[in-house]
Amino acid sequence: MTVSRDVELEGHIIDSGMLQAAFGIVMDNGGEFDVEEFDIGREKTATSYARLRISAPDEETLQAIVHELHHHGANPADDADARLEPAPADQVVPDGFYSTTNHPTQIRYDDEWIPVEEIEMDCAVIVEDGDDPRAYTKVLNAIEAGDQVVVGEAGIRVRPPERPRDTEGAFGFMQGGISSERPSETTIEQIADAIDETKREDGNVLVVAGPALIHSGAREDLARLVREGYVDGLSIGNGFAVHDLERDLYGTSLGVNTETLDHARKGHKHHIYTISEIIRAGSIPEAIESGLVESGVMYECVQNDVPYVIAGSIRDDGPLPDTITDAVEAQNAIREQAREADMVLMLSTLLHSVAVGNCLPSTTRVVCVDINPATVTQLLDRGSAQAVGMVTDIGTFVPILAEKLLD
Amino acid sequence: MTVSRDVELEGHIIDSGMLQAAFGIVMDNGGEFDVEEFDIGREKTATSYARLRISAPDEETLQAIVHELHHHGANPADDADARLEPAPADQVVPDGFYSTTNHPTQIRYDDEWIPVEEIEMDCAVIVEDGDDPRAYTKVLNAIEAGDQVVVGEAGIRVRPPERPRDTEGAFGFMQGGISSERPSETTIEQIADAIDETKREDGNVLVVAGPALIHSGAREDLARLVREGYVDGLSIGNGFAVHDLERDLYGTSLGVNTETLDHARKGHKHHIYTISEIIRAGSIPEAIESGLVESGVMYECVQNDVPYVIAGSIRDDGPLPDTITDAVEAQNAIREQAREADMVLMLSTLLHSVAVGNCLPSTTRVVCVDINPATVTQLLDRGSAQAVGMVTDIGTFVPILAEKLLD
Amino acid sequence: MTVSRDVELEGHIIDSGMLQAAFGIVMDNGGEFDVEEFDIGREKTATSYARLRISAPDEETLQAIVHELHHHGANPADDADARLEPAPADQVVPDGFYSTTNHPTQIRYDDEWIPVEEIEMDCAVIVEDGDDPRAYTKVLNAIEAGDQVVVGEAGIRVRPPERPRDTEGAFGFMQGGISSERPSETTIEQIADAIDETKREDGNVLVVAGPALIHSGAREDLARLVREGYVDGLSIGNGFAVHDLERDLYGTSLGVNTETLDHARKGHKHHIYTISEIIRAGSIPEAIESGLVESGVMYECVQNDVPYVIAGSIRDDGPLPDTITDAVEAQNAIREQAREADMVLMLSTLLHSVAVGNCLPSTTRVVCVDINPATVTQLLDRGSAQAVGMVTDIGTFVPILAEKLLD
Amino acid sequence: MTVSRDVELEGHIIDSGMLQAAFGIVMDNGGEFDVEEFDIGREKTATSYARLRISAPDEETLQAIVHELHHHGANPADDADARLEPAPADQVVPDGFYSTTNHPTQIRYDDEWIPVEEIEMDCAVIVEDGDDPRAYTKVLNAIEAGDQVVVGEAGIRVRPPERPRDTEGAFGFMQGGISSERPSETTIEQIADAIDETKREDGNVLVVAGPALIHSGAREDLARLVREGYVDGLSIGNGFAVHDLERDLYGTSLGVNTETLDHARKGHKHHIYTISEIIRAGSIPEAIESGLVESGVMYECVQNDVPYVIAGSIRDDGPLPDTITDAVEAQNAIREQAREADMVLMLSTLLHSVAVGNCLPSTTRVVCVDINPATVTQLLDRGSAQAVGMVTDIGTFVPILAEKLLD
Repeated sequence: MTVSRDVELEGHIIDSGMLQAAFGIVMDNGGEFDVEEFDIGREKTATSYARLRISAPDEETLQAIVHELHHHGANPADDADARLEPAPADQVVPDGFYSTTNHPTQIRYDDEWIPVEEIEMDCAVIVEDGDDPRAYTKVLNAIEAGDQVVVGEAGIRVRPPERPRDTEGAFGFMQGGISSERPSETTIEQIADAIDETKREDGNVLVVAGPALIHSGAREDLARLVREGYVDGLSIGNGFAVHDLERDLYGTSLGVNTETLDHARKGHKHHIYTISEIIRAGSIPEAIESGLVESGVMYECVQNDVPYVIAGSIRDDGPLPDTITDAVEAQNAIREQAREADMVLMLSTLLHSVAVGNCLPSTTRVVCVDINPATVTQLLDRGSAQAVGMVTDIGTFVPILAEKLLD
Repeated sequence: MTVSRDVELEGHIIDSGMLQAAFGIVMDNGGEFDVEEFDIGREKTATSYARLRISAPDEETLQAIVHELHHHGANPADDADARLEPAPADQVVPDGFYSTTNHPTQIRYDDEWIPVEEIEMDCAVIVEDGDDPRAYTKVLNAIEAGDQVVVGEAGIRVRPPERPRDTEGAFGFMQGGISSERPSETTIEQIADAIDETKREDGNVLVVAGPALIHSGAREDLARLVREGYVDGLSIGNGFAVHDLERDLYGTSLGVNTETLDHARKGHKHHIYTISEIIRAGSIPEAIESGLVESGVMYECVQNDVPYVIAGSIRDDGPLPDTITDAVEAQNAIREQAREADMVLMLSTLLHSVAVGNCLPSTTRVVCVDINPATVTQLLDRGSAQAVGMVTDIGTFVPILAEKLLD
Repeated sequence: MTVSRDVELEGHIIDSGMLQAAFGIVMDNGGEFDVEEFDIGREKTATSYARLRISAPDEETLQAIVHELHHHGANPADDADARLEPAPADQVVPDGFYSTTNHPTQIRYDDEWIPVEEIEMDCAVIVEDGDDPRAYTKVLNAIEAGDQVVVGEAGIRVRPPERPRDTEGAFGFMQGGISSERPSETTIEQIADAIDETKREDGNVLVVAGPALIHSGAREDLARLVREGYVDGLSIGNGFAVHDLERDLYGTSLGVNTETLDHARKGHKHHIYTISEIIRAGSIPEAIESGLVESGVMYECVQNDVPYVIAGSIRDDGPLPDTITDAVEAQNAIREQAREADMVLMLSTLLHSVAVGNCLPSTTRVVCVDINPATVTQLLDRGSAQAVGMVTDIGTFVPILAEKLLD
Repeated sequence: MTVSRDVELEGHIIDSGMLQAAFGIVMDNGGEFDVEEFDIGREKTATSYARLRISAPDEETLQAIVHELHHHGANPADDADARLEPAPADQVVPDGFYSTTNHPTQIRYDDEWIPVEEIEMDCAVIVEDGDDPRAYTKVLNAIEAGDQVVVGEAGIRVRPPERPRDTEGAFGFMQGGISSERPSETTIEQIADAIDETKREDGNVLVVAGPALIHSGAREDLARLVREGYVDGLSIGNGFAVHDLERDLYGTSLGVNTETLDHARKGHKHHIYTISEIIRAGSIPEAIESGLVESGVMYECVQNDVPYVIAGSIRDDGPLPDTITDAVEAQNAIREQAREADMVLMLSTLLHSVAVGNCLPSTTRVVCVDINPATVTQLLDRGSAQAVGMVTDIGTFVPILAEKLLD
């Protein structure tokens, strides 16, 4: 017995790939479609509208198709309110709760469409009643008993970002594959332009960086960018901070003098001594205040009031007293950073980039730089609408970026 | 002064991505479009039709846009004949000659659409007059003075392959990125099924393989597949043949005993001794006939009349007497193989896979297997409509494939 | 003013590379050496002895050289006791504390050499007085005020592992580079033999695994190995457990059916639903007890009393109630696992492998398997004396390993 | 029945790793050794001497061990002349011919040690009689009937390069693994210093480059280096030349404008049009002479009389009239380049780097730059004694190198 339901798509649905995706989803899942209405945007700036009737051999298949269509911006063509159920206990969601995408989303409540605040993928949507009802996301571990949680898929509208109306430039629209065979300096120049533009518009630039940046000799240039106001937040791990501080205290990074390449004397113990010195001083800001640490990325952050989050991991030595060792607590700190960011530079760290990326809406600009093409691909696949990936050497990328921004 | 021209698209133009590509090309190049007619296929199996008026600020831009649209299957909406000009000299094409894509193509000649035979990208199209006029491709170095060569873009129709009407399975349609995180055994099973299917339909399976296959211990299993009739052609380099023969003569590959892992005694000279033995015997078939070589991939090819091409390269030792050292001659031999193939397995060689891929139409099924994701991505990017890429270990892939096909 | 000091080396110091390393260290650091005594082991089984006088232009350089020599097994040639100082506060070590290598180490206390228990790199050495004095390692964050900590380098002997007296087989001695061009099945067979041997000697096999193992379809085979008693401990992250359980609950891994390759319906939400189901059940063991979860790696661990550690990270969804979210607490749990292990299989996870590797002495056998050669190289570089690295596909490795062990 | 033979080692045999290698070879192959004489160099600059008696259970094993020892610089301790046999036919060597290493080698002829000229691995050694007898290498395909070829191993001395007596700097001695985590700018500075030094000593710098250099936007900087006299030879393929010329003719590389990143209009046909233009002009020099080509790497080579070799391959489009399509002929041209080079820069090409590397003695300085760590490792493994490998982006490497050399 065939069952069917109507869905609607609206916007630049052809060149943004939404209609193609919708047709593909139906076919991949064994359904049929019937184009009931189709109004094509005749010119470049005009939007299109489509209403499709989706059919499937059984209700379960139909529901699966509609569910997936929904995640790609094909919304059910009816105007019911979203259904709410209270969370039965802390951290426990009601059965069939709606789990978010990272795209701008609205829910229908009391016959009004209201936006879901702080959209982030894999969250529940909580609705707060009142004169001015609000909807916002919560991760599973933040759910409290009694929270009104959206369940099912009715009354929810997802609007994936659309392809810009002109040439794409460095920031490709939803681009997948990444080639290492692109003009490197020109691409870095375009990234510099985008940072400049973001800063001119008072935007927030978040830098996520791994220790390879320090080992590869780019520390001084990143410190300059912090000092000159191009960085509004820093998201790192214990290792990045340790090696940045080691460079100040001992002139080495992982025991190698990054300026002379001399193999460090006693160098392979410098990182442990660095940690023990900071523990002795109490914290990084105290070590800077006391004059122990006099340069580097952490130094510039402290001196210029650039907030940073040092998130711990199981491979850390030490850790430093400033490192947040609890993963959930660290995620919450990262979430705050991510929400404020207008542009995120992910520099040679997979772990921290994924952690930040998990918290970003699809509308934040993202730059991913790594020497490993698989890392760049994995980060771009997370679905930012405006992203540029570069397979390059962080040790040459940061100096050239700094030169283009500062000179 | 705005200039404009009409183009047409026909077929499953939405879910095959053709319409999206067309809109994107126009916008990327600073043009405008106007949808003059649009007839959407209302159901899954119905085709769509679109006629777009493309406008641009000048003739040069317009021509560039139309040119690129053309390569993606948006054909000029007029029914002129293709324009022909004679080649002025051997290897020299007329100015503005039409350079092919790898998609099925027709040209209009004497008011009739005739198919271009042996379609292959980056070639010229030659038309032979007569009662039964023919059009076919020629690479630049094969052009002869006086050849009637198609110039311009009028009277040429390109039809890119369309997305199949059902689920895609392992062979994704025009898929870009490749993940190493897919179920390996299941994917290999689907590849085995596709080979089985090809053989049941009397199709031709071409294996392109690099020496890593031998070093990684997969030689015996590939030899079995040749013996059992699953391989209709072999495209390799000098190194593959040398190490396959070395294994027979000395029990090693690159000096390592692939069964015991014992470091070979004198092993690092075995490949040179192998070459000198084959030179002494006259050729690989003579070495087999004389009883010198008694096993392996080359042995099975010779014994089972499976044709092979050994294409030379500048990194070869020797080379073997059977190796074609001239690159153009080798390409011609590879071209013959590629044209007969219905399915191509590209096994851990970039150089030979690219050489074969250059000669394939977009309709041939392709399987790319390599441990390096960049290699798999690069091979899939060449635009086969039915391709599956696996980032895996050739030394475990071939044994599992052989088990699934033979047991 | 030239200063000098004597150091001694003993054992198979030539073929284990110790003497070569010592000469290199002196030259790299601008020192001189004078071989004062040299007694070469005349036959394969005889040990050698060398006493070198190391000279340098100043005391600081000399100390640096001696320090580094020390870490490579060239010990100061005097028999002073190790110097002890009390830790001034919790987590704070005395200035100049001795930071360990991962090699077997002894310290001299009351004119007796006593072994340092639970050796692990980058730790302090604590001495406990008493009738039966003990020395053991402590990581920085475990130091308590008043702990007697070894400072300086006198009275400490480091003994790096020596090259075995016969052929090396798959487990190379201190081998650096890793090639993907080795016979895969033979190497897996040798790893299987080593596991068998470890189990026959009642040894402990620890498996460290990442989620790629589940995505790549190797879950059932790892579960079999757990069930059949080949795994004595499991060290994983939240993602591994989630995707293993998702496969049980929804038949998918990351939304892909690993058996049919069908794209999962609603699949991209399965992992979040899985987490919410386990939270609802209370924990993994409770979910198994209640009959909710009926198969998989976690299931077999619980049913067969194989202890596991689920270490949290900032990229986790959820996390599961069983995940240790605090990095220091998780490290302590991992440390316990590492100390019991006689052989460690590191399967397609960099983060967890580094965490475990940090806690291992150089004498534990290690197997590293990853598709990314850089990961394998990085793990082997940590200095296990008996290690084998394979650049291969975990989705084919585990099935073949299981077949070789179980059939 | 135990058999035995004596071998000798001489030089800095401990810190150059020769003695360690020798012991390992004996043990790996099931032999025994007895140190009959050992004279250690007591100070840094003093050389050592060792005579070992090698024993094995049978003559075949002994011969295998001695053979491998020989390749690592442990020479038979007897002073027989090298044995000579005439080649029976063109390209056919006598049975048991001696196949060379890439280390400096001498052979004993008429009781005199004479050096083997133009040493290169995997060659035969030919001796020419006369007043002034000479020994030199020949590749297999150059052997002529009647050539006096060295067979066996008597009367041959191999001297691997020794570790320099001071710090190693960027050019590590026989270093294996390569990390991408090294200070990039400092390493490039050291490479610039080495080039400067080579030029000051009137040395010859050979650049081997792949097309990725052009795509990544480094073309202008390499052209400057050629113009300013830092490049004495260029070894490339057809693709490099085509894309360099395409940039001049159409402003694109592979259809991308490397300065604006604009997607090229008609760009994906530019390389074919470029080839057809050069064919029309006759050759690259003729295209330059006629004013058709006015810039780029090829242009500067022609204008500054820097010789180049364009070696063909089976993946070439065209090819250009200047490309040597026969692999053996191309190898001979490359061999000439390699022999003249004092320093070789291998820039993002595996195929051409291996081809050049095959012809180099172990004493030539080598710099390998690639974004793929596996490529860098593979090139360094070929055994140059003075090599530096960098895993970096060629598109940032060349501009920084040019800045350091020219500014």
